[in-house]
Amino acid sequence: MVNPLFGPELRMMLEEDNLPGQKAFCESIHPTTVAETLDEADFTVDEVWKVLSQTGSREQAAIFEYFPAAWQLKLVEGGGRPQMAKLIEQMSHDDRVDLLRRLSPRVADGLLRLVDEADRRDIATLFRYAANTVGSIMTTDYAWLPVSLTAGQALDRLRQQAPDRETIYYIYILNETTRRLEGVVSLRDLILCDRHVQVSELLESDIFALKVTDDQERAAEELARYDFLALPVTDEEGRLVGIVTHDDVIDVITQEATEDLQRQAAVGPISEAYFDASFVKVWKSRAGWLSALFILQMFTLTAIERFDDVIKQVIVLTLFMPLCMSVGGNAGSQAATLIIRALALEQVALGDWLRVFRRELAVGSALALTIGLLGFARTFLFTHSEILGGVPLGQLTLVIGISVAAICLCGTLVGSMIPLMLRRIGFDPAIASSPMIATISDVTGIMIYFSIARIFLL
Amino acid sequence: MVNPLFGPELRMMLEEDNLPGQKAFCESIHPTTVAETLDEADFTVDEVWKVLSQTGSREQAAIFEYFPAAWQLKLVEGGGRPQMAKLIEQMSHDDRVDLLRRLSPRVADGLLRLVDEADRRDIATLFRYAANTVGSIMTTDYAWLPVSLTAGQALDRLRQQAPDRETIYYIYILNETTRRLEGVVSLRDLILCDRHVQVSELLESDIFALKVTDDQERAAEELARYDFLALPVTDEEGRLVGIVTHDDVIDVITQEATEDLQRQAAVGPISEAYFDASFVKVWKSRAGWLSALFILQMFTLTAIERFDDVIKQVIVLTLFMPLCMSVGGNAGSQAATLIIRALALEQVALGDWLRVFRRELAVGSALALTIGLLGFARTFLFTHSEILGGVPLGQLTLVIGISVAAICLCGTLVGSMIPLMLRRIGFDPAIASSPMIATISDVTGIMIYFSIARIFLL
Repeated sequence: MVNPLFGPELRMMLEEDNLPGQKAFCESIHPTTVAETLDEADFTVDEVWKVLSQTGSREQAAIFEYFPAAWQLKLVEGGGRPQMAKLIEQMSHDDRVDLLRRLSPRVADGLLRLVDEADRRDIATLFRYAANTVGSIMTTDYAWLPVSLTAGQALDRLRQQAPDRETIYYIYILNETTRRLEGVVSLRDLILCDRHVQVSELLESDIFALKVTDDQERAAEELARYDFLALPVTDEEGRLVGIVTHDDVIDVITQEATEDLQRQAAVGPISEAYFDASFVKVWKSRAGWLSALFILQMFTLTAIERFDDVIKQVIVLTLFMPLCMSVGGNAGSQAATLIIRALALEQVALGDWLRVFRRELAVGSALALTIGLLGFARTFLFTHSEILGGVPLGQLTLVIGISVAAICLCGTLVGSMIPLMLRRIGFDPAIASSPMIATISDVTGIMIYFSIARIFLL
Repeated sequence: MVNPLFGPELRMMLEEDNLPGQKAFCESIHPTTVAETLDEADFTVDEVWKVLSQTGSREQAAIFEYFPAAWQLKLVEGGGRPQMAKLIEQMSHDDRVDLLRRLSPRVADGLLRLVDEADRRDIATLFRYAANTVGSIMTTDYAWLPVSLTAGQALDRLRQQAPDRETIYYIYILNETTRRLEGVVSLRDLILCDRHVQVSELLESDIFALKVTDDQERAAEELARYDFLALPVTDEEGRLVGIVTHDDVIDVITQEATEDLQRQAAVGPISEAYFDASFVKVWKSRAGWLSALFILQMFTLTAIERFDDVIKQVIVLTLFMPLCMSVGGNAGSQAATLIIRALALEQVALGDWLRVFRRELAVGSALALTIGLLGFARTFLFTHSEILGGVPLGQLTLVIGISVAAICLCGTLVGSMIPLMLRRIGFDPAIASSPMIATISDVTGIMIYFSIARIFLL
């Protein structure tokens, strides 16, 4: 999406050693665009550093934050340590902790020794929080003020803080000695009122705060619920320790969507980009589920063994086995996915199970009728007489039509009820992946198919 | 998540006809919380209107916007038209268009006739844009100023606009006669500088703007890319027509994630909440795919027919058929999902297909080895001798182990390449749903299984 001329232009500036041009490039366009140009146009690590070093460490940090994770690591390795330490001091507090987490402890320690005391302490604090918690995505560069000011004084104080703060549009009001969160004032209210109004009059004190140990998904839910720009984060004593901003939440939502999709396909979560994830990690996260499903699928053997007599007498039935079985898995995947998503978005609660059951019974019956008619038509119209092996076509048609319909309905009900059952016993309903539902449906499908065949054909 | 005491408390206020209490309830807590309390605690439409009417139409509108869509429709039907028209005048410009789209044309027209002229024109403009475009999610209540002001004058003008604007944190600078977008100034920069600085000096003129006809997904991508609070939207002549804000984008991302999950399970998109979607719509969006997959699955019949000789001679093979086939679908779903997501997040491009192929060949081989060994062990250790029907256990074990491994590898490669092929020929790769991959894998699985059996057992 980047202007395709930026790359060649910058390449020429490098060849001509046009330093003012490189500086202007870094400073006059949006840092995202600078990072994307440097990323896409095949520059070497040395060339990137050469361009970056034409500007100040604040701009360097802004550009650096938009590089993909793999590039950031290459740049850390290829950059001078003192230069890198300066850049880290200027990075936003949450992004730099993400970066340091990805570095080897040796490299991270080496760099941290060159970072100034206050920033080092701040990094150590954020480092403590476990992955996927609110603490791990929050930033500590929020704007705050004591309550005892007028609007005018507040604006003056804010002007001093502003350059370093991630957002100044919400200003958190803290008790000056305990640092307890007392409320929030928006910059909007602050500039709309008269300079002499007391901040305490503007204060919104009944505010929602996240706990530092909350799951990051909670942050995404609550921010979306209130349409806020940022949410405050407090510790057990109610002291403000950070804020989570709207851009962090967008990242969390995208990451969670990836995880949901992976879970639905029975892949253990892989949070890295496709080419960045290690071979062993990818193997593990796929082999685990694949093996589990394979073992579960072994029940089909037991199921089929029970119908040994039917199969031996009516061999043509094996021909239709995959066709009949697959319907259950497909219908089940559809139902399971709809219910899992509805549970996640809180459109459906556990208590609604009977309503869900009734609805899926109705929809499943309509689907069964549709697919049953298709099965009926296919068998009656296109079955070669030589493969029938003496079985009357009418009866076979009946068996296939009824089986397919029954398996479709059964798959729909199984697919819709399993996520609710999983939630009921305390599991994440999303582990009812499409392959898992298909596997369970295969076993029930075999039982239904051969039972119906036994009735009509033996 | 709402305080569970709010519901009973409000119920008591209604019973005691405590009007000041109801007014305070509406005005002192966040509108989300008010709406959720009224929604969750089983109040009737009349009771909700009774509570809402204690406060002004601006607060009513703020609360109303947080009701779920189904409730909003009930409230429109149950409310007085003049009251509802006042409320609509106060609603945010994008939300009220959403509401009016959902009403029957008759009801919408009736209401619009009571809405004041300027608002009616604004609604008509937004109504024009097709669903899923930027135009359909943008709002027209942005803050704007001409370029010829000082920072101080700008702040003064802004104070007059502010109460009606969705956000005043970005102020768009327009040419006063053409309304062309000339740039943006942030409120942050405006309050940080001296009052006498010219707005033109603060202006960021090299800005990204969405087109009103762009896909809403584009808005989500670009906003996430730049970490902005809002993006401007222009028409073909470069005139500012609206803005898309961070909260709209979060809704879009959630909606797109739902669609992705549905597509992965072969469900035509259902954007309504689970219980809100109509029976016919749900049936259609499920029956279509289910029928297509059923017809695709019919190829398994043709595949099996070709191995009639093998099946008739070695009946025990049918026993293992579902076990062998399912592996391909499961391995394929995993690979397809990873590639589809990587394509969507632009981690993988079409040109990377050979790198993807190599990687999936490596991972697929490791998975094949894992599952092959499991299949080998299961067959060798747990096969009852009476079902063998004369087939030597050693050879059967070999057939199952090798087949399972080969099908696993083949499924992985098929699953990873199909999304890339779909993208290549201009289709959305996400239509390669788990059930579709499973169906294709079933056909190839049967061919592989019986071919290997023919080699070893005939």
